[in-house]
Amino acid sequence: MPTKPAPARDRLIRAAARLFMARSYEAVGVAEICAAAKVQKGGFYHSFASKSDLVIAVIDHHAAALWDLLDRFEGRKRSPVNKIRATADAVGDIQGRLYAFFGRIVGCPLGNLAVELATIDAAAGQHVASVFEQWERRVARHCQDAADAGQLDLDVDPARLAHQIIATMQGMIVLAKASGTGPAEIPRAMHKVIDSGLRQHAA
Amino acid sequence: MPTKPAPARDRLIRAAARLFMARSYEAVGVAEICAAAKVQKGGFYHSFASKSDLVIAVIDHHAAALWDLLDRFEGRKRSPVNKIRATADAVGDIQGRLYAFFGRIVGCPLGNLAVELATIDAAAGQHVASVFEQWERRVARHCQDAADAGQLDLDVDPARLAHQIIATMQGMIVLAKASGTGPAEIPRAMHKVIDSGLRQHAA
Repeated sequence: MPTKPAPARDRLIRAAARLFMARSYEAVGVAEICAAAKVQKGGFYHSFASKSDLVIAVIDHHAAALWDLLDRFEGRKRSPVNKIRATADAVGDIQGRLYAFFGRIVGCPLGNLAVELATIDAAAGQHVASVFEQWERRVARHCQDAADAGQLDLDVDPARLAHQIIATMQGMIVLAKASGTGPAEIPRAMHKVIDSGLRQHAA
Repeated sequence: MPTKPAPARDRLIRAAARLFMARSYEAVGVAEICAAAKVQKGGFYHSFASKSDLVIAVIDHHAAALWDLLDRFEGRKRSPVNKIRATADAVGDIQGRLYAFFGRIVGCPLGNLAVELATIDAAAGQHVASVFEQWERRVARHCQDAADAGQLDLDVDPARLAHQIIATMQGMIVLAKASGTGPAEIPRAMHKVIDSGLRQHAA
């Protein structure tokens, strides 16, 4: 028996997520998203008021996948430092899979949208910014736990370390996307930043 | 006597540079660039074969301004470490001026184009990537000089430190653009990365 196709709304979100990553938000129109999702244009506007409305759902889709992956990577870890490291490993996993799928670094699914939307769509830009804040707070909590457990250098501010980890990720992805290199350096650089915050620079 | 207006080609490059930063490359069309530059559409195609051709000139325009600024900031410095620091100070200067002009963080003029063009315009994407490579080589040269002068930790690879400095800049700018904060943290984070490479973590 053939499996029932996913609802139109879900197909639109997945097609848009893929097309925005493959090219960019502005470079892809509603007609192309509908064609890729095998949804009529009327069906699109039944699910979403606009492309701007759709990208909010795409951001939520990426965020949900990220929280799931972080839960999985952190779940295996016991020490706060290893929970911090889980973010680097999760990013390495995501970038490795995207690289295999697209055959090149296409960027951070959320970072691309943050860069593009901040100046052209305030509501969507704020939505993706809130996901980054949530991610950073999550890492900052583990950094605080590591500080409380005496695992961080005394002069390291846990919130600042978390910001530095997320910033390094974004910057490494931008450079890898620009230069066309592979994903391996991205988690490695994040682990180096984590190392730099650890007590006596030892793991 | 009224001053002679800049040539059409220059006006188009400056208008496009400003509009791409204010919004994005894909969000701005040729007609809008012509209107902002006070150039007829025919005049546009006299200067450029296409918008893709124009963005190459915009990248060169940003790169030339960057090399000038780095020359100025590095020129005042004697030690290799201070020449490395000049990159952080130059970025702080650029971001401070862009913030004053646009009233918000609009991103790195080159980084924005790198993120957007890599997946939609291979030639232009490679062009902006080559500017990043040149910038990174320049910082790496100062890092190598610092290593030769015994100013870096022995376990620090100069080329890797340069990459980390540029990546931190890009990442901090992405997060500041997304979150709508000011520019002050950007050079500060870059100086912290530089600090982390210095011998005995002292400047």
